[in-house]
Amino acid sequence: MAEITKRSDDYSRWYQDVIAAAELAENSPVRGCMVIRPNGYAIWENIQRTLDDKFKELGHVNAYFPLLIPKSFLAKEAEHVEGFAKECAIVTHHRLKQVTVDGKTTVVPDPDSKLEEEYIIRPTSETVIWDAYRKWIQSYRDLPLLINQWANVMRWEMRTRMFLRTTEFLWQEGHTAHATAEEGRAETLQMLEAYRWFAEEILAIPVLPGPKTENERFAGAVETFSIEAMMQDNKALQAATSHDLGQNFAKAFDVKYQDAEGKVEHVWATSWGMSTRIMGALIMAHSDDNGLVLPPRIAPTKAVIVPIWKNDEEMAQMCEAARDLAAKLSPVVGTVHVDDRDKMRPGWKYGEWERKGVPVRLELGPRDLAGQQVMMAARHDRKKQPVGFAVLADAVQAELERIQTDLYDAAITRRRENTHVVDSWDAFTDLYTKGDGGFALAHWCGGGDCEEAIQQKTKVTIRNMPFERDETPGECVHCGKPSIGRVVFAQAY
Amino acid sequence: MAEITKRSDDYSRWYQDVIAAAELAENSPVRGCMVIRPNGYAIWENIQRTLDDKFKELGHVNAYFPLLIPKSFLAKEAEHVEGFAKECAIVTHHRLKQVTVDGKTTVVPDPDSKLEEEYIIRPTSETVIWDAYRKWIQSYRDLPLLINQWANVMRWEMRTRMFLRTTEFLWQEGHTAHATAEEGRAETLQMLEAYRWFAEEILAIPVLPGPKTENERFAGAVETFSIEAMMQDNKALQAATSHDLGQNFAKAFDVKYQDAEGKVEHVWATSWGMSTRIMGALIMAHSDDNGLVLPPRIAPTKAVIVPIWKNDEEMAQMCEAARDLAAKLSPVVGTVHVDDRDKMRPGWKYGEWERKGVPVRLELGPRDLAGQQVMMAARHDRKKQPVGFAVLADAVQAELERIQTDLYDAAITRRRENTHVVDSWDAFTDLYTKGDGGFALAHWCGGGDCEEAIQQKTKVTIRNMPFERDETPGECVHCGKPSIGRVVFAQAY
Repeated sequence: MAEITKRSDDYSRWYQDVIAAAELAENSPVRGCMVIRPNGYAIWENIQRTLDDKFKELGHVNAYFPLLIPKSFLAKEAEHVEGFAKECAIVTHHRLKQVTVDGKTTVVPDPDSKLEEEYIIRPTSETVIWDAYRKWIQSYRDLPLLINQWANVMRWEMRTRMFLRTTEFLWQEGHTAHATAEEGRAETLQMLEAYRWFAEEILAIPVLPGPKTENERFAGAVETFSIEAMMQDNKALQAATSHDLGQNFAKAFDVKYQDAEGKVEHVWATSWGMSTRIMGALIMAHSDDNGLVLPPRIAPTKAVIVPIWKNDEEMAQMCEAARDLAAKLSPVVGTVHVDDRDKMRPGWKYGEWERKGVPVRLELGPRDLAGQQVMMAARHDRKKQPVGFAVLADAVQAELERIQTDLYDAAITRRRENTHVVDSWDAFTDLYTKGDGGFALAHWCGGGDCEEAIQQKTKVTIRNMPFERDETPGECVHCGKPSIGRVVFAQAY
Repeated sequence: MAEITKRSDDYSRWYQDVIAAAELAENSPVRGCMVIRPNGYAIWENIQRTLDDKFKELGHVNAYFPLLIPKSFLAKEAEHVEGFAKECAIVTHHRLKQVTVDGKTTVVPDPDSKLEEEYIIRPTSETVIWDAYRKWIQSYRDLPLLINQWANVMRWEMRTRMFLRTTEFLWQEGHTAHATAEEGRAETLQMLEAYRWFAEEILAIPVLPGPKTENERFAGAVETFSIEAMMQDNKALQAATSHDLGQNFAKAFDVKYQDAEGKVEHVWATSWGMSTRIMGALIMAHSDDNGLVLPPRIAPTKAVIVPIWKNDEEMAQMCEAARDLAAKLSPVVGTVHVDDRDKMRPGWKYGEWERKGVPVRLELGPRDLAGQQVMMAARHDRKKQPVGFAVLADAVQAELERIQTDLYDAAITRRRENTHVVDSWDAFTDLYTKGDGGFALAHWCGGGDCEEAIQQKTKVTIRNMPFERDETPGECVHCGKPSIGRVVFAQAY
């Protein structure tokens, strides 16, 4: 077991070390693609289940659209092609043929199998989905159309980091169609709120919801909203986006409906997505120098019981007692694992479950069993206390809730401490060069050129314009022109 | 609403019509790829949930491996490359660039973005997974490794049919590693049994489990097992496969483990999969000339309530009563839908829910409400009966069980009636030219050449060598040589 680098020594290595130590993922031989290992995938399954339930509660259904997109589809929406016809995987042939070169057999793309029109692996599915919607939507009775897709997508990234930016990633993408602009906007905001709920209530990550600037809009959207989180290194991470697409895709793919009065009009659209990137946010938001820390509501294993013994007889006895406890606990608190592995010391096991982020550990030795109690330890603050068998389920449940609350509180305290009202360019540049960075609430003129100049000089970007913000006009922190109020600046992942 | 072609008129068009009428899927503009519509995907979600629970109950965990496979990986296992380095999607470039030709802007693969080594989109993931297993397996303590993946895969098919054979399809692929040959074989058979259970108990499709012939083995397997079902047109459909891979992939990717005594050896492997192809089997197994018929255990909606009214006052009253009933029924029987759509006649609604395969329909009119009863109709045999509100949940539950049993019984009767013991080449060819086809239980010499000759002459293949079969030797139905016993022949999808 390799050591985990300390956050204070090298935050970026610490992140990688935590992922390795908790066996969440690893790099693959495929450029920029990762393997999501079972421990990591179990978290993603919980994310999927929770989001999927929420989407369905809000009236959405799932469907599946093709992985490949005809090249010409991309070009149908002018801004979309600008945004996505760049770094993407292009399929040009459909057959390999074996050839022998210098007595060695190898395979090459068969020139006879060159495609008439190339396909790209979907970077996002608006085009292929709106092509289908044209056939599905005729009347106002077909609206709203509320569809979500769970899928893999691919964007050929040059600089990749596990979960945060990978060439292939997993996500869900919602694509809805509505009869009016107002309904489309309401859906966009409803889904943004669903993501805020999920980030804050389930992942214990406080986020700022609000619109992005025009420069940062999704290619083809009339308005893009995001939720923005702060990581432990004070950088921002965009945790999800929800786009109001107006009639852009309906017009590009000629999707019209007839209303109750017989009038024919293009429909209004939204799209919204959350990806495996959120796993990176989850890892970075709460983990510490001992490894992964998970909020109980998303942790696949809620508690681990480590039986302690000195000889074979005790081993059998302790393991049996541990399994009994687990059987009683699981229906109440969720999955409880018994670590009955032989030939490993309890201390070694404690370390392993700490690295893997199981929220609660229960230690059970012969003396505990005699006293009908266990020693309960919390992963995040290492607090330990004895708990009697009779009240164990309630105690573990309460402890899980305490952990969930503590993690959220710590994150929001950290964000408050690292959010600064900044009113001069000197203070702004100092914050990001000499200071600790974080969120700067600063006036901005609303100009895209000014926004770009700030980014070029400082690598700081406008994360979004939070719904809850100070809109009192002032002077732009960079150019001094009249501002549209304070927006959130930060260096970002 | 287009008419559904009768099975007796054109079975193949009937199949397509049922898919269209039930809104399960449609062809896409991407060659050989389909769009799985919400009604179809809801069934797939139930399949996923049920199989996934079963896999986990048997100790498996999920993970995710890259979509793309380096070309060279395929070549590592000699038979595997023969089998899969054929029709596949090949990624050769990673960037599109805009060019203007005759004043028109278009996008083309940027020659500067040509990849050094091409990737293929996974046709199956043995290679990329075994490359990872090399890093994960060192000791007997790491075994068994029991991993499953839910993923999309792609095989460039020339002749495609929705669900049955599509270029892209969805599936699960299990990939396990074991310390001994015996354990590997036991896992292979255990998963085959899991598939048999799923097909028979959940989908109500009787299947024959057994090994495939050597000719039909998975590329790289030492033994392939399948479950084979009979469709209503008497053709066979391979519903799932489970492969004993021996040490082939472990040797190709150099995956070794050290046993408790310190001896180092290659591990033993299995892989097994079920795909969206099973949706084709499910549709064909039970549906009729009125549309889709679904076994209740896999149906997303168990029952639909159709309220009947003559005026607005009645409408409000009936819809409210229907919603009350649904709220009481759902916790007991599963999802119950209320069709409260205005401006559609009850008869039209009945037809729609018949086409969509909802197992039970409950009709509720003013007179029914006055008598505190509904009219309950079964989709598959159209039997109708009045049921009092007081006993409705139990009655619907019992009706769903009756339907499940009926569908299985009908399928197994059909299979029995269309399974023939055939002892001469004339009788064999007559069965598949003049007769109705079906399963032929006939003697086979065990020779691959003979098997191929039979296929060339009659398009009939050996489906598998069922575990439960007559192993008394006889004379091969084709060449007359001594046989290995009777195997199952059929024309197949």
